[in-house]
Amino acid sequence: MNYYSAPVARLIEEFEKLPGIGHKTAQRLAFHVLNMPMEKAQGLSGAIIDAKIKTKYCSVCNNLTDVDPCGICSGPNRDNTTICVVENPRDVVAMEKTREFQGVYHVLHGAISPMDGVGPEDIKIKELLGRIGQGSIKEVILATNPNIEGEATAMYISKLLKPLGIKTSRIAHGLPVGGDLEYADEVTLAKALEGRREL
Amino acid sequence: MNYYSAPVARLIEEFEKLPGIGHKTAQRLAFHVLNMPMEKAQGLSGAIIDAKIKTKYCSVCNNLTDVDPCGICSGPNRDNTTICVVENPRDVVAMEKTREFQGVYHVLHGAISPMDGVGPEDIKIKELLGRIGQGSIKEVILATNPNIEGEATAMYISKLLKPLGIKTSRIAHGLPVGGDLEYADEVTLAKALEGRREL
Repeated sequence: MNYYSAPVARLIEEFEKLPGIGHKTAQRLAFHVLNMPMEKAQGLSGAIIDAKIKTKYCSVCNNLTDVDPCGICSGPNRDNTTICVVENPRDVVAMEKTREFQGVYHVLHGAISPMDGVGPEDIKIKELLGRIGQGSIKEVILATNPNIEGEATAMYISKLLKPLGIKTSRIAHGLPVGGDLEYADEVTLAKALEGRREL
Repeated sequence: MNYYSAPVARLIEEFEKLPGIGHKTAQRLAFHVLNMPMEKAQGLSGAIIDAKIKTKYCSVCNNLTDVDPCGICSGPNRDNTTICVVENPRDVVAMEKTREFQGVYHVLHGAISPMDGVGPEDIKIKELLGRIGQGSIKEVILATNPNIEGEATAMYISKLLKPLGIKTSRIAHGLPVGGDLEYADEVTLAKALEGRREL
């Protein structure tokens, strides 16, 4: 039996398709929208389409952007000789928030994962090699995720870059700041020990 | 500093306005939308506007509906002499899911709450009296929430209806089914005891 009118049922269904939104939350969001003034609902609805239409991929680094090349690639204060390779646009935001990195990015849009049928040709590795082929790149920092897929991707790329004489580095593994030794998993702890630095 | 392009920042902001959606979740939702095929994004965007445009309030019971009067008020198998008074449309859905109630509803769209500046004239009490004034109503079941505002609203309405000779009842307080006596709060337990029934 259907307790909602068709447009409300459809709205609940659409909200339910979003990640992390279950049926109860979808219901709450739908009723919230129904209680909104019309112009607020138009604001939400419009922002969705607007973001989709105006957002493109940067032709240089493949990051999401509304101008091409993106603000980072065309930034006057960025060091164009250092590329930080990340899996997705969210990782760019995470790196930018540290305010520590002054170079440019390359977004792979995924990681090599044979289990999911994602091979090296399915992510933007060819485009990375193209950028490096242009000659001015001095260092490539591999900042893919510290999981199996991310490690495999970093290994794969480093093997491609070694013969080209490009300095290739991997972000450090270790204990998160504010973490507790007691609760760290053994692999992280082993990596932290292995990566110890002289003081 | 802004890490996102304007349309993406606007989308994140719009998602953040929804109830229970914080900044991190809004970011995740926005990136999910950006990764959607265009027609899926249009589906979500369209459903929001569509639900807003097509959803009206039933002129009889004030429930949300796409036809007027709503499916419940115009239902052939509903008992039009019994009105269940609830605070909002979600409560109608909750009651309907029990499949126990065959009467019709009256949605108040709120509860009396002097603290929030909501008085009797701000919710649909006048409309309820109007329906009762038409003469065919035999019983009014007050199913407002079991909290201070809901209780006050139920009391207020029952005092208005008593002089009219309308049978007025309140839904029972007690232990939730599957609950545990040990963990019940004392007020609920006292109400459960007070409302005990002979077997």
